[in-house]
Amino acid sequence: MKHLIVYSHPNPKSFNHAIMETLAGELTTLGHEVKIRDLYAINFDPVLKASDFELIQSGKVAADVKVEQDHIAWADVISFVHPIWWTGLPAMVKGYIDRVYSFGFAYKIDDTGVTGLLNGKKVLIINTTGTPEEIYAKIGMFNSILQTSDDGIYRFCAMEVLKHVFFTAIPYITDAERAGMLVEVKEIAKTICNK
Amino acid sequence: MKHLIVYSHPNPKSFNHAIMETLAGELTTLGHEVKIRDLYAINFDPVLKASDFELIQSGKVAADVKVEQDHIAWADVISFVHPIWWTGLPAMVKGYIDRVYSFGFAYKIDDTGVTGLLNGKKVLIINTTGTPEEIYAKIGMFNSILQTSDDGIYRFCAMEVLKHVFFTAIPYITDAERAGMLVEVKEIAKTICNK
Repeated sequence: MKHLIVYSHPNPKSFNHAIMETLAGELTTLGHEVKIRDLYAINFDPVLKASDFELIQSGKVAADVKVEQDHIAWADVISFVHPIWWTGLPAMVKGYIDRVYSFGFAYKIDDTGVTGLLNGKKVLIINTTGTPEEIYAKIGMFNSILQTSDDGIYRFCAMEVLKHVFFTAIPYITDAERAGMLVEVKEIAKTICNK
Repeated sequence: MKHLIVYSHPNPKSFNHAIMETLAGELTTLGHEVKIRDLYAINFDPVLKASDFELIQSGKVAADVKVEQDHIAWADVISFVHPIWWTGLPAMVKGYIDRVYSFGFAYKIDDTGVTGLLNGKKVLIINTTGTPEEIYAKIGMFNSILQTSDDGIYRFCAMEVLKHVFFTAIPYITDAERAGMLVEVKEIAKTICNK
């Protein structure tokens, strides 16, 4: 299978980076093709501009958007690895969606309504949070985060959500606990490849 | 009262722009001081960088962040005017939150837990959606959008949410309906000033 990992964190020493490397390593070990898009490293521009709208109206997209769309078109499974900031996607990841998941590529709208165009593609989402699990769980925040990402973005485009994992309270846990999470990432890699 | 309007849309001819101008005009007519931060016009950089984290750790913020924080410090009421894209904040607005609502300015964390630092400040949110109201209402999406913005961002910082309005199905309605929405914006301006 062809795996695209869309990874975003400003710090190459972050736990998110370790998750991305662990996931990519395990998928490669399992014999899959893996491509990584490190949005900070490629200096991706997350700001949807008036010019993007104009291009879309004439059936085109910006050159940098086309590069990312080609990666998506290539992939069977797309894995997003990034933190949750302010109960949502960081601007870099949100802007990747705003620009790359464009009208005509990720979905279309006609008289029959909205049709997702990424059917057949699977998605794995691995997020970290600084907030401890119990705080979000108590107020139902995980449901809201899931609905505004899995339903609002990925399923809207007809992608199949394989799994959405939250590793929580990252700044407050031990190195051993973080190492345990990376073991879990390897297990997830194995599991999604059997689906 | 001192009103800060944080506005974001790539198209100066957009309905969001009309909402922002109507809100600013009515608040001015009512005798208030109004400042507008047009995030696209000022070319705000929404990408939180490793350097931002380093500055925060030494109790500082980047120069462009400081400008925005000074505007917030000045204001009694902060009004956000922007579209909802993909059931969340556009990258430009999300990055404004990621960078400007920094640790030490918008909230602090110590042994007693999280404390919002923007107490005393009020917030109005006016959003547009392309999606018709009934589609989001049927699946409870408005609740998820409200929780991941009002609870996850503004109330987290101890701000008082005065009102969060959604104007929906904007591309599919008539000019008269949009004009009616602008009348509603004027009413909202009057209402929040009486609170």
